[in-house]
Amino acid sequence: MQFKIDSLDKSSNARAGTITTDHGEIQTPIFMPVGTAGTVKGVHQRELEEDVKAEIILGNTYHLFLRPGLEVIEKAGGLHKFNGWEKPILTDSGGYQVYSLSGTRKIKEEGVTFQSHIDGSKHIFSPERVMDIQRVIGADIIMAFDECTPYPCEYGYAKNSMEMTHRWLKRCCEHFDKTESLYGYSQTLFPIVQGSVYKDLRKQSAEKIASFEREGNAIGGLSVGEPAEMMYEMTEDVCSILPKDKPRYLMGVGTPANILESIALGVDMFDCVMPTRNARNGMLFTTEGILNMRNVKWKNDHSKIDMGLGGHVSTFYSKAYLRHLITSKEILGAQIASIHNLTFYLWLVKEARKHIIAGDFTSWKNETIKKVMQRL
Amino acid sequence: MQFKIDSLDKSSNARAGTITTDHGEIQTPIFMPVGTAGTVKGVHQRELEEDVKAEIILGNTYHLFLRPGLEVIEKAGGLHKFNGWEKPILTDSGGYQVYSLSGTRKIKEEGVTFQSHIDGSKHIFSPERVMDIQRVIGADIIMAFDECTPYPCEYGYAKNSMEMTHRWLKRCCEHFDKTESLYGYSQTLFPIVQGSVYKDLRKQSAEKIASFEREGNAIGGLSVGEPAEMMYEMTEDVCSILPKDKPRYLMGVGTPANILESIALGVDMFDCVMPTRNARNGMLFTTEGILNMRNVKWKNDHSKIDMGLGGHVSTFYSKAYLRHLITSKEILGAQIASIHNLTFYLWLVKEARKHIIAGDFTSWKNETIKKVMQRL
Repeated sequence: MQFKIDSLDKSSNARAGTITTDHGEIQTPIFMPVGTAGTVKGVHQRELEEDVKAEIILGNTYHLFLRPGLEVIEKAGGLHKFNGWEKPILTDSGGYQVYSLSGTRKIKEEGVTFQSHIDGSKHIFSPERVMDIQRVIGADIIMAFDECTPYPCEYGYAKNSMEMTHRWLKRCCEHFDKTESLYGYSQTLFPIVQGSVYKDLRKQSAEKIASFEREGNAIGGLSVGEPAEMMYEMTEDVCSILPKDKPRYLMGVGTPANILESIALGVDMFDCVMPTRNARNGMLFTTEGILNMRNVKWKNDHSKIDMGLGGHVSTFYSKAYLRHLITSKEILGAQIASIHNLTFYLWLVKEARKHIIAGDFTSWKNETIKKVMQRL
Repeated sequence: MQFKIDSLDKSSNARAGTITTDHGEIQTPIFMPVGTAGTVKGVHQRELEEDVKAEIILGNTYHLFLRPGLEVIEKAGGLHKFNGWEKPILTDSGGYQVYSLSGTRKIKEEGVTFQSHIDGSKHIFSPERVMDIQRVIGADIIMAFDECTPYPCEYGYAKNSMEMTHRWLKRCCEHFDKTESLYGYSQTLFPIVQGSVYKDLRKQSAEKIASFEREGNAIGGLSVGEPAEMMYEMTEDVCSILPKDKPRYLMGVGTPANILESIALGVDMFDCVMPTRNARNGMLFTTEGILNMRNVKWKNDHSKIDMGLGGHVSTFYSKAYLRHLITSKEILGAQIASIHNLTFYLWLVKEARKHIIAGDFTSWKNETIKKVMQRL
C-alpha cells in the first residue's frame, strides 16, 4: 500500500491524498460503505461502483467468520471473488462486534471467548487468530485486534484495556509479518489508537501506535456515545501525534458534520453504518438537508429526491414515491434510500477533497454543515 | 390498443403477436412481473427494463387504492409518472384481493364492502367505482370487476357468481365507455371469463365475454388450487371460444410448465407472483432446473447462478454467494433472486415466441419443460 499527499489545506489540518492498493486507488478523504456480511445491505455491487461511486468498502470479520465461514470464503478465493467487488476492501478485526453483539464474552490476555449471535456456538478470537482470519478473508487493509472500550469508561479500565490493546498489537504485527497473503496481492495492517476520552491515555496510545510504523493508523473507541466535542478533542490530539505521511482512519464516524469536522482535524478515512441503517428507517441525507421520509409532508411532494447529487436513484425517483415505499415497508424503499444516502456520503467526501485542493475547504465546510444538517 | 398476430404455430394453438399501446409495444406471449404496490418487490425500474427486459408490469388496484391512495397517484399524473415506469402497465380490478385478503367482506349485487388489511377502514368496490379507480391509476390495460371463485366451489355458487360477474361486466363497460382517460393516453378494458372448473359454465362465460367485443379478454378463477390438468382443460375450452384476433390473458398463472402449456393452448399474456415470491424464499428457476438456495449443496458452488440466461445478476453473482445472502436474510439475496427469476420468466416467453416463429414450438416446449422443471 502506498499513500501520497496530493494537497494540504492552509486553514486546517485537512489533506487530500491517494492510497494505492493492489485493487486500485482510493482518493482521500474517503467514506467506506459498510458491507457487514459481504454485502452493503440493499445495494448491488454494480450500483456501489457506478451509482454510489464507492472506492473501497468494509467487511466485518466477526460476521464473515460466522457466516458464510472461512471455508467458503477461502474456496471462493477471498472476499473480493466471493462477492464480486473488485475494488479495495477493508476488514475490521471483529473486536467491536465481539464486545457489543455477543451475549457472553470473556476477555483474557490470551484473547476473547464469545458466543455466536446466530447459533450460540463458542469461539475464541486472539490477535494471532484474527490475523489468520483476515488473511483468509483477504481484505487489502486489515485491522489489528483491539478492545474497544465503551462510553463512559473508568480511567483504570481504559488504561488497562489500552495497554492490553498495545500488547495485542505487538502480537498482531509479529503474526501478520510472518504470514503471507493467500491470494497473490498485498495486505496491510492498521493498528488502532485507544484510550477512551482521556487525553493522557490517547497521547500515550497514539505515540505507541505510531512507533509500530505501519502503513496507516486508525483511531478507535470514539463515536460510542461521548459528546461530539469530546470526540473532536481526542481526534485532534491523536492526529497531532500520528505521522502526517500515513493515512488516518477514524473508525465508525459518523454524521456528515462529524465527517467534515474530522477531515479538518486531519482524518482521511471513515466508515459508518449511519447512511444505510438510517436509510432503512426512512432518514435521508440530501444536499438540502435531512428528510424524514415518514413525515406526511412528503406525501404529495412529487419532486425528485435530490437534484443536487446527480446519481440515478436520487434524480429518478420522487420523494412521494419513496415515502410510499418506506411507509409500505417495500424492499425497494430501503434500496433507494440506501443508494441515495451512500451517494450523498461519497459526494460529501469528494466535494471536501475538491475544496481542500481548491483552497477554500474551511468556509465550504462551515456552510455545508449548516445546510446539510438542517432538518427539512 | 392494437393486436396483430405475427405467427401461428402449426402443431398447437400457440401464437406470437404484438400488442401496441400508447406506452409502447408488447411482443406476445408475454409474462408481466407483478408490481403490487407500484413496485416489483426488490427490483429497480431500471433493472426491470434493462436486465429483466420486462415489456409490461402489473399493478394491484386494491393495494394502490389503499396505499398511497388515489389522491397521491392522481397528483403524480398516474402510476407511470408516480413510479417512473414508462412502458405499459396493466391493473387488476382488486376483486381477487378483496376476496382473499380482506378479513370481512360482503358481496352484494351493488358491489363489495370490505375492510383494509392495513388499518381496518371500510370501503366499497362496485363495478363503476373500480372503473373510476383504474382511470385514476391510469394503466394501459384495466380489468373488469369480477368475483374470483375459490377452488373447490359448488356448482350453484359458481353459476350465480358467474352470472353476477357478467352483470357487473355490463356495468363496467357502460361506465368505462362513458368516462375518459385522465392523462391523455388510451386505456382499454379486458373482461374476465369465470365459471370455476365447470365446462358448461366456462363455455357460457366465454361466449358471454366474447359478445362484449372488447379489445382483449382474460381468463380468471384458475390457478386457485385446482389440478393443473383441470386448469388446462378449462383454458383450452375457453380459448376455443374467445376470438382469435384478440389477446388472451390467463390471470395468475403460473409455473414455467403452466406457462408453456398454456401458450400451446392459445394464451398470450401471463402474470404471477411466483418468480418474485419464491425468489424471496430462496427458490430459483434456471435454464438448468429449479434450485433451492437454502440447500447445503450450493454452499461451496462458486459457479455463476445461470450462464444460460445472459442477464447481469445471473452471470455476475455465484450460487455460493447467493446462498450466503439468502441464509443470512440479507436484502441483496431477495434482490438478486427476484431479478434472476424474472429474467428467467421473460427469457422463457421470449424463447417461446422465437420457437413459435421458427415453427418448432411443441418439441422445444416439451424438452424445455422437462429441463427447467427438474429439481437440481
